[in-house]
Amino acid sequence: MKHGIDYSLYLCTDRGLMTSATIEESVEAALKGGATVVQLREKDCSSREFYELALRVKRITGGYKVPLIINDRVDIALAVHADGVHIGQKDLPCKVVRAVVPPEMLVGVSAATVAEAVQAEADGADYLGVGAMFATSTKTDTRPVTMETLLAIRQAVKIPIVVIGGINERTLQAFKGTGVDGIAVVSAIVAKPDPEAAARELLRLWKM
Amino acid sequence: MKHGIDYSLYLCTDRGLMTSATIEESVEAALKGGATVVQLREKDCSSREFYELALRVKRITGGYKVPLIINDRVDIALAVHADGVHIGQKDLPCKVVRAVVPPEMLVGVSAATVAEAVQAEADGADYLGVGAMFATSTKTDTRPVTMETLLAIRQAVKIPIVVIGGINERTLQAFKGTGVDGIAVVSAIVAKPDPEAAARELLRLWKM
Repeated sequence: MKHGIDYSLYLCTDRGLMTSATIEESVEAALKGGATVVQLREKDCSSREFYELALRVKRITGGYKVPLIINDRVDIALAVHADGVHIGQKDLPCKVVRAVVPPEMLVGVSAATVAEAVQAEADGADYLGVGAMFATSTKTDTRPVTMETLLAIRQAVKIPIVVIGGINERTLQAFKGTGVDGIAVVSAIVAKPDPEAAARELLRLWKM
Repeated sequence: MKHGIDYSLYLCTDRGLMTSATIEESVEAALKGGATVVQLREKDCSSREFYELALRVKRITGGYKVPLIINDRVDIALAVHADGVHIGQKDLPCKVVRAVVPPEMLVGVSAATVAEAVQAEADGADYLGVGAMFATSTKTDTRPVTMETLLAIRQAVKIPIVVIGGINERTLQAFKGTGVDGIAVVSAIVAKPDPEAAARELLRLWKM
């Protein structure tokens, strides 16, 4: 699973923003619409709840042969044999995560500067999430990454890059010539009345 | 480290209750007073902060040759090579934890019933924390375990048991004839003006 991953449309879940009744419904709609990677992010539940949800979501992503990536919680990723784990700059250091997960597990890292991106690649990251590209309602603690920084990161590292933060059907156009591998979205799918149609349209526009 | 552990005086940290300026000071005072196990519990910080704190506390416990056990977060335990991890009934299942940590890592489980205790032992737990024995300010979501249940648990399992929940210099007397291996305390050490003296006195009274 680790190599040859299609990062085109990378879904991040958000329980607080979704229009669906459950995370599972939200994920399945996005998968039907063509999402190519799913990242599960939960902050306010017990470890047991996160684990049980991750098991249920993995059954769904597995049915679509789409990788499931767990946000922050390396233990949950290990427990459910997720395809990957995604860590931010406030989570465990990439080098430490790499040492405790099996080699076949994807490790993604959030990077907002060239230094962070280069460090992550050196520490064994498999891909980068670069952003936030725009100010968004889901991440209020970050300054937008400039297009100049994104292009410098793209030049500085060889690993795949997804852009995140304020990516939607309009803003995605700006990233087509940048050499990034995909777009990561939260509200542009999960907050839409029809997440399946939203995912399908995002993928169509990105591949156009 | 795994075998021959002295469970006599098992300290659980609590940032909100401690009189010391830092967790490190609180732990070191307890160790000077004779604490034989330290469990680090953090709920409201980033994974990076928990990781860095755990590294610092491990340097202290290591100096006293006392095992460091991480509460709930198996990933933090793995990342800092802690001596153990302690899981409650709302954390990852014991069997799953056992499968992702190295065999030499201690796995402790909170149990409040005979069924939970027997299950934990069958799933590979190395010791049990049984409680809460009394209603306490640190755990408001649990009903006290009766002395009858404690004795039934002691009969039902072979692994070491520490009692927790409202254990202090007065209440500890009730557990001397029960066959449990130690007392686990939070506020009876960390909330005291002199945590070192409090630990020393608890250990003296327990061993008397």
